[in-house]
Amino acid sequence: MYWPETVTINDVGLRDGLQLESTILTAEQKKLIADGLIKANVKTIEFGSFVHPKLVPQMANSGEVFELLKNQGDVKLIALIPNLKGAQNAASKGIKQVNTVFSASNTHNLQNIKQTTQTSIENYKQIKEFCDEHHMKLDVSLATSFGCPFEGEISESRIHSIIGQITQIGVDTITLADTTGMANPKQVYELVNGVVAQFPDQKFNLHFHNTRDMGLPNILAGIQAGVSSFDAALGGLGGCPFAPGATGNVCTEDVVHMLHNMGIDTGIDLDQLLKTSALLQDLVGHELPSSVLKAGKSNRKYEVPVS
Amino acid sequence: MYWPETVTINDVGLRDGLQLESTILTAEQKKLIADGLIKANVKTIEFGSFVHPKLVPQMANSGEVFELLKNQGDVKLIALIPNLKGAQNAASKGIKQVNTVFSASNTHNLQNIKQTTQTSIENYKQIKEFCDEHHMKLDVSLATSFGCPFEGEISESRIHSIIGQITQIGVDTITLADTTGMANPKQVYELVNGVVAQFPDQKFNLHFHNTRDMGLPNILAGIQAGVSSFDAALGGLGGCPFAPGATGNVCTEDVVHMLHNMGIDTGIDLDQLLKTSALLQDLVGHELPSSVLKAGKSNRKYEVPVS
Repeated sequence: MYWPETVTINDVGLRDGLQLESTILTAEQKKLIADGLIKANVKTIEFGSFVHPKLVPQMANSGEVFELLKNQGDVKLIALIPNLKGAQNAASKGIKQVNTVFSASNTHNLQNIKQTTQTSIENYKQIKEFCDEHHMKLDVSLATSFGCPFEGEISESRIHSIIGQITQIGVDTITLADTTGMANPKQVYELVNGVVAQFPDQKFNLHFHNTRDMGLPNILAGIQAGVSSFDAALGGLGGCPFAPGATGNVCTEDVVHMLHNMGIDTGIDLDQLLKTSALLQDLVGHELPSSVLKAGKSNRKYEVPVS
Repeated sequence: MYWPETVTINDVGLRDGLQLESTILTAEQKKLIADGLIKANVKTIEFGSFVHPKLVPQMANSGEVFELLKNQGDVKLIALIPNLKGAQNAASKGIKQVNTVFSASNTHNLQNIKQTTQTSIENYKQIKEFCDEHHMKLDVSLATSFGCPFEGEISESRIHSIIGQITQIGVDTITLADTTGMANPKQVYELVNGVVAQFPDQKFNLHFHNTRDMGLPNILAGIQAGVSSFDAALGGLGGCPFAPGATGNVCTEDVVHMLHNMGIDTGIDLDQLLKTSALLQDLVGHELPSSVLKAGKSNRKYEVPVS
C-alpha cells in the first residue's frame, strides 16, 4: 500500500454540509465556523454557493459570508456556482475561485439543473471564458461520478469522455463526486487509477459521502490510486435527499484523525478542528455524525482504575 | 490493490454486540437473531460467553441459547471463555468450539481478567489440554492488539512473541482484536503483513470496532495484507467502555454490503441480514449504528419524479 507524506483536506461543511439543514445559520455564525477552520489551518474552504435562494435558502447569505471572510491570506475561499449567472454574482462580490457542478448522469443533471450533461459542458465554455476574463480560478465538480440514484452505474468511458471535454476547455481542479454515497473502494481505485493515467497533468480531487460508511475506505482507495486531495465536511454534516436520516459528507475530523494516525500530514490542527466541530454542533442544534467528536482521539489514554 | 474472490464474515453480535446492552434478551429472542443469521447463510456465530453472570448479566443465558441452537448443520457456534472454568462449562453443554480471550496489553489484561498476559499464556496451556481431551476446537482472541487505552501503543515485537507462544501450544484461529477502536489502516496493514509472513501456516482473523469510523478501512487494509476472515456484529451493535455513546463493533451488514459491492463474495444474503438487523433493533429498543439499515443499499434505484 502507498502512504504519501501529505494529503490536502478541503472543508465543504459550510456549503455541502449545511445546504440541507433546516436551521439557517447567520453570516456571522458561519464566520465563526470559518474562523475556527482557518485557525485549525484548513487552507481551502467552500464557504457557500450562488444558487437560487428559493432552492437552497441556507445559501442565501453566501455573499455576506464572503464579505465577512475575504482577505484571509493564503486560505482559498471557494463558492459553488451552478451556471454563468452564479459566476457573475460571485465576480461581483470579488470572489476569486469558483467551483461549478454538473452531473455525469444525464438523468440526475436533468433533475438537478434542468439540462443535459452535454448542455452543461457547452455552458461550461462560457463560464470558463467569463472566469478567464475576470481572473477567477474555475474548478469543476462532476456529480454522480460513482453512480446515480436514478440510472445506477455510470460507465467509466462516460467519465473519461466528460473529463476529456472539460480539460480541452480548461479547468483548475476536477472533483469526482460521489454525490449520494454509492462508491465503493474497488470502484474508486479502478476509476481513479484510470483517469489519473489518462489525464496525468490534470489536478484531481475526490468528494465522498459516508452514506453507507464507505467514506474513509474510499479515501484510502483514492490515496492508493494516487490522489492526495479530498473534500470533507466538518462534523460529517450533510445529507442525502435520497436517504433521509442517513449520514452525510465524510467527516473532516474523522478523515484528519485517520490520516494523522497513519503518519500522513494534513497541516491541520485536529484539536482545534474538534473544538470548531463542537461549536457547529451547538449552532445546528443536533448531534453531528462525527465519530472522533464522540469517542475522542484514539491516542487518548485512560487512568488505570484504583481498585 | 488486492481483491480476493471470497471473504468470511463471523457474526459476534450476540456476544460482543450485546454484552454491554442494558436490555437483557431472552434465550428465545437470541435464537430469533441466530436463526435470521443462519437463514442469511452466516456460517460462524459467536453466540455467547461463559463469564461470570454478575460481570456480564447479558451472557448469563448463554448455555440456554446454545441448547436452543445446537445441531445447525455446518454452522459453527462459538462460545467465548475467559478461563479453564469457562471451557469446562462450555464442554458440559456440548459446545464444540470455544474462543478464549486475553490482552496483549499487560495493564489491560490485569484490569480485565486480573492476571498478567504471561500468566494468561501459562493458563492457556491448560485450556488447550482440556479442549484437546474433549475434542473441542480452540481459538484465541488477542485483545488490544492494535493499542491499549491505558498503555497506548503495543509493540509489534510483543504481538509476535505472544503469537509465537500460542502457536507453540497450538491453536485453531488467532484473532487480532482492536478492542477499543484504536487501529488505523496503515498499522493494520503493517502489523498483519508482519505476522502473516512470520506465521504462514497459522489461520488469522481480524476483529475491529468502528469507534472512530476506521472499521471498514481497517478491513480493507487487512484484506490487502492477506487476511480473509473478519468479525463483525449485526447492526454495528456493541460499545466501548472507554467511549460511552461511541459506535461499537464494525457492522456486519455494512461490511457485507461493501464487500459485495467490490465483487467479493461472502456467501451471505444481505437482504436477509438487513431483515435480521431490523429485528435486532426492535429487540434492543434503540437505533442501531448500521449505515445500510438506515440508507438502504447503494444499488437501490429511485423513480425520476414527475414534474
